[in-house]
Amino acid sequence: MILKVGGSVLTEKDDEETVADVFDDVLAAVARSAPDDLVLVHGAGSFGHPHAARHGIDDETPSDEGAYETHTAVARLNRRVVETLGGHGVDAFPVHPSSFAWRDDGTHVPTSGVDRLQEAGLLPVVHGDVVADPRGGVSVLSGDEIAVELADTDEAIGMCTSAGGVLDEEGNRLERVSSVEQIAELGEDTTDVTGGIRGKVERLLSVPSGGRVFGAEGIDAYLAGEAVGTLVRR
Amino acid sequence: MILKVGGSVLTEKDDEETVADVFDDVLAAVARSAPDDLVLVHGAGSFGHPHAARHGIDDETPSDEGAYETHTAVARLNRRVVETLGGHGVDAFPVHPSSFAWRDDGTHVPTSGVDRLQEAGLLPVVHGDVVADPRGGVSVLSGDEIAVELADTDEAIGMCTSAGGVLDEEGNRLERVSSVEQIAELGEDTTDVTGGIRGKVERLLSVPSGGRVFGAEGIDAYLAGEAVGTLVRR
Repeated sequence: MILKVGGSVLTEKDDEETVADVFDDVLAAVARSAPDDLVLVHGAGSFGHPHAARHGIDDETPSDEGAYETHTAVARLNRRVVETLGGHGVDAFPVHPSSFAWRDDGTHVPTSGVDRLQEAGLLPVVHGDVVADPRGGVSVLSGDEIAVELADTDEAIGMCTSAGGVLDEEGNRLERVSSVEQIAELGEDTTDVTGGIRGKVERLLSVPSGGRVFGAEGIDAYLAGEAVGTLVRR
Repeated sequence: MILKVGGSVLTEKDDEETVADVFDDVLAAVARSAPDDLVLVHGAGSFGHPHAARHGIDDETPSDEGAYETHTAVARLNRRVVETLGGHGVDAFPVHPSSFAWRDDGTHVPTSGVDRLQEAGLLPVVHGDVVADPRGGVSVLSGDEIAVELADTDEAIGMCTSAGGVLDEEGNRLERVSSVEQIAELGEDTTDVTGGIRGKVERLLSVPSGGRVFGAEGIDAYLAGEAVGTLVRR
């Protein structure tokens, strides 16, 4: 089971490298309800995006300048997450995609390291990162993309986001989305270099088992296997 | 080309989490002489070993307690190394083995991440770490072992160590070692949980191309492809 918690949930968007007020509560819920087979993925939020933006790095534009600066900023958030989970009694362990994932014509995220940490009894905590790009330097690999890449064919994917689900134009949460056409116009998270809700929907529609999009209040229920938020499945 | 610089060179053995006086000089030499295809590996030194020892973790004894503490201590040294190289104008990038390597009956260190970072124009800086162990938690994977595991069949391996080479009982450096029997009694680095010179010799003898063992003053010459220190090859 994969839970991806967005940078928009864990960090203050407008305050660089600042965690959100709900940071501890969200991770307490993860610690309380995590099944043995959980992999936690988190976004970069205000730790990674400002550095990436300053150096013009995104998922389609690589750079060597700013590569380490951007990685290490997200790694700081990752340590906060791992240490907070540790404070709640969970043997969490950091996983840095830049150490083993890369892009060429496609995106490659080998799962062996995560699988072995899990088998060894640790909770892998993976983060949105920058990864080697043969065009030169690194490009952004979002937490959303990592979550989908790490999932086995039949594995549950949950995406916890500040939007609380996939919303229609009136702000009502949709029960289910099964095509991109269904969401003609959705508010994009404009400051998130790796895309907002539309990107999540497209990624979840790309895998047979799909996934769920929900808010922080849905974490316990999702981890208990309940139907929360919006189901996104083709 | 692989250069492994020992924790005994980079850190003060008796002062926890303290870099050695020569730290900057050693990395300046690496920055000055690094060929394009270099992979730098460094040991844990006084950053990792005290934490591992406190929790009883070594290469044969895994533990979940102390896993994160030990990893994150070595990662602190790794950041110092990467940032110091950056100060000398090198686009260095951290590589954390715990994110992708593991043990079971053998040791598994997939090389894709390192290879792709190199192709993208970055200098991978890999460190001795703890890695997932199916017996429960993590066990120590030394920088020496990583250096040998990362090497291609015909790739040069250099091990820079405070001993300055493989020495005989009178303290004279041997020109060549071609068997373990040849070094009946060598002073072991007793505080290094991952073994000293004997371990290096055994590891280098295990690969066809062998490698060289030398002191910090030999880094420039090794990186220039010269014959420095002790050649260890079966």
